[in-house]
Amino acid sequence: MKQMKSFLKLFTGLLVLITFLGLTACGEQKQAPTAEVAKVEKEVIVWKLAQTWGTGFPIFGDAVIKMADMVKAMSNGEMEIRIDSSNKHKAAFGILDMVNAGQYEMGHSASYYWKGKDASTMFFTTMPFGMIAPEQYAWFYYGGGMELMKKVYDKHGVYSFPGGNTGNQMGGWFRKEINTLDDLKGLKMRIPGFAGEVLSKLGVVVTNIPPGELYTALDRGTIDALEWVGPSLDLNMGFQKIAPYYYTGWHEPATELQFLVNQAKFDALPKHLQEILTVAMELAAYDMYARSYHESAVNLASIEKDFPEVKIRTFPAPIIAAMKKANEELLTEAAASDASFKEILDSQTAYMKMARQWTVISDYAYLKDNLE
Amino acid sequence: MKQMKSFLKLFTGLLVLITFLGLTACGEQKQAPTAEVAKVEKEVIVWKLAQTWGTGFPIFGDAVIKMADMVKAMSNGEMEIRIDSSNKHKAAFGILDMVNAGQYEMGHSASYYWKGKDASTMFFTTMPFGMIAPEQYAWFYYGGGMELMKKVYDKHGVYSFPGGNTGNQMGGWFRKEINTLDDLKGLKMRIPGFAGEVLSKLGVVVTNIPPGELYTALDRGTIDALEWVGPSLDLNMGFQKIAPYYYTGWHEPATELQFLVNQAKFDALPKHLQEILTVAMELAAYDMYARSYHESAVNLASIEKDFPEVKIRTFPAPIIAAMKKANEELLTEAAASDASFKEILDSQTAYMKMARQWTVISDYAYLKDNLE
Repeated sequence: MKQMKSFLKLFTGLLVLITFLGLTACGEQKQAPTAEVAKVEKEVIVWKLAQTWGTGFPIFGDAVIKMADMVKAMSNGEMEIRIDSSNKHKAAFGILDMVNAGQYEMGHSASYYWKGKDASTMFFTTMPFGMIAPEQYAWFYYGGGMELMKKVYDKHGVYSFPGGNTGNQMGGWFRKEINTLDDLKGLKMRIPGFAGEVLSKLGVVVTNIPPGELYTALDRGTIDALEWVGPSLDLNMGFQKIAPYYYTGWHEPATELQFLVNQAKFDALPKHLQEILTVAMELAAYDMYARSYHESAVNLASIEKDFPEVKIRTFPAPIIAAMKKANEELLTEAAASDASFKEILDSQTAYMKMARQWTVISDYAYLKDNLE
Repeated sequence: MKQMKSFLKLFTGLLVLITFLGLTACGEQKQAPTAEVAKVEKEVIVWKLAQTWGTGFPIFGDAVIKMADMVKAMSNGEMEIRIDSSNKHKAAFGILDMVNAGQYEMGHSASYYWKGKDASTMFFTTMPFGMIAPEQYAWFYYGGGMELMKKVYDKHGVYSFPGGNTGNQMGGWFRKEINTLDDLKGLKMRIPGFAGEVLSKLGVVVTNIPPGELYTALDRGTIDALEWVGPSLDLNMGFQKIAPYYYTGWHEPATELQFLVNQAKFDALPKHLQEILTVAMELAAYDMYARSYHESAVNLASIEKDFPEVKIRTFPAPIIAAMKKANEELLTEAAASDASFKEILDSQTAYMKMARQWTVISDYAYLKDNLE
C-alpha cells in the first residue's frame, strides 16, 4: 500500500503538471483565439476614442462608429474601441491634447481646429479655393500629403489619418442677397477658420457662435449670415426657414475630418492590429464621403420640394475674385515666416495645378457637355 | 506488482487521454494564433484569384495585389490570396464562369464583360451618360446599388463587389478631327461594350481588336480611332504619337472594376475573415480611384509637355446630343423586354437625377467659379 500511495502521489503530481503545461500551451494562443471555448479567456485590447462631436451626431459620429465596428469584427473581438462624445469629455476642441497625453488612445476631429497651436495643421482639412475631394485624396495618398501630415503631427506625438470627407461645403445661408462687395461690408457672419480671416479682409464682421445657438442668432438678427456644412447637415438645423439665400461654396471644397492616434500606443499594438486599425480608418473616411454625397443629394431634393422659397445663388465673379485675392495674400504672408507652412502650401498648390488640368478635361468637361 | 501494473496501465491511459484533450483544446484555437510558438502549426486558408489582366498590368493589377496584401496582414497570415493573371489561366473573359464553378474562389474583372450572358450586369461598371464616380459610389453604398448587384449576381452563384474606379474615361484617340455627324459615318473605331452599340447607330464601323494589336492597327489605318482608358493607362500605349486628337469622355464616366467571390466559399469563411475580405475589397476599390486620379493627372502633364501636338477636343454639341438620343433609344428598347434591366435602369436614372442636382451646385459650381 505504501508503493501504491507513492504512485498516487506521483500520479497526482504529474496530473497537475500536465494540466498546467496544457493551460500554458493554450495560454500562449490567448491573444487571438477563434474557438468559442477559448473566447471567455482571451485578453481584449480596449481603447478609448474622444470625438469632437456630441452623442448621436449624424454622419461624422457614424463614421467613427463604423470604424470601431470594423476593428472589432475584423480582429474577431481582439480589439475594441469605445467612443466618448463631447458630452462626456467636455473638451470638443481638446482632442489633440488628450490624445497626445495618452488620456485617450484615439480621437476624431478636424485638423484645422489646431491652427491656433500650429498653423500648418489647417492644410489637412481643406483650404479656400483648394482641391476638391478626388484631387485631395489623390494628394493625400499618392501626392505626398500623408508624408507632410506625418511630419507636422510627429511634433505633437500623434499619427493623423484622413477621417471622412463632407464633400464641397456650401458658402452659407444669407438673409439678404449678396450682389456687390459693398453688401459684404459690415455683414455679421459666423464663419470659422481661415475663410473667416479671408472675409474679414473684405469687411465682414466675423463672429463665432456655438452650434446650439446658431438658429436663434440668425433668427434674431444677431448675425446676418452663417455657414455650416451643406444640405447633408444643414437641413436639420432649420436655417432654410429664416435665411432664404443659400450660396454655393468657395471656402471648404473638400473638408476632411481626422483620426488621431497616440504614437506610443499605436507602436505598441501587434502588427496585424496596426493594419486593421489603419485600414478601418481609411475605409471609414472614404465611406463618409459617399455617405455625405448621398445625404447631400437627398436633403437638397427635400429643400427644393419643401422649401421652394430657398434661392440657390453663386457669388458674383468680382466677389469671388476679391476672396481669391485676399486668400492668396493671407497665405503668402503666413508662408513668409513659417517654413513648414510654406512647404505644405507649395505642395498643395503644385499638386492642385496638375490635378485640376485632369479634372477639367474629365468630370468637368463631361458635366458641362451634359448640362449645355 | 499486479496492482502496480494495473496502476501503470491506468496512469498511461489517463496520460494519453489528458494529452489528447489538451491537444484538442489547443487545436480549436489553431485557426487564429498570434504566439510565435503556435505559428508553425496554424492552418492557413489559401485562396486563388483569377484576374482578367495580364501579369504586371498597372493600376488594375496593383489594386488586386493591395487587396491581397491587406487580407494577409490584417488576418495575421491566417488567410492568403494567390493571384493568377490571364497569362496563366488563359481565360481573360471567363472569370465569372471560373469563380461560379469554384475553380477560383475569387476573380477581378469588370461587370460589363458579362453583358452577353446577362445584360443587367453592365450597369455595375459604368453607363454612357451615366453617373460620375462620387455619384456612383453613393448609389452603390447608399442608394440601393449593392442590393441590385447582389440580386443580379445571385443568379450566377457569386458575390460581386466594387473593384476599383478608373475615373472618367477619355472618349478616345482619333486620327482626324470630328466636327459633324458625317465625320462619324464609316469611321472605323475600336470601342467595346454598350458605347459601341451607340456609335454603331450613328454609322461608326465598330470593331474589337486585342489590346496588343491596337497600336499597329491604328498606325496602319486598319482603324481610324480607338478608346482605351485615359491618360493613366493610355500614355504607355503610345497612341499620342499617331492619333493627335484626344477627345473627352461621354461613354464611361466612372468605370468601376469588380471583385467576384464564390458564394459557397465566402459563406464557409469564419465571420472575421469575411469582414476582413469585404473591407479589403472595398478599400482597394476606393484606393484605385485615388491612384487612377493621380496617374491621370501625372500622365496628362507628361502628354502636354512631351507631345504638344496632341489636341484635346470635346465632341460638338450636336454629336453629343445624337449620342445621347441613340443611347436612350437602346436602353428603352432593352428595358422593354427585361424586367431586371428595367429595374436597375430606373434606379440609376432616378438616383443620378437627384445626385446630379447636388453635383451641379457643389463641385461643378465651384470649378466653374474657379475657371471663369
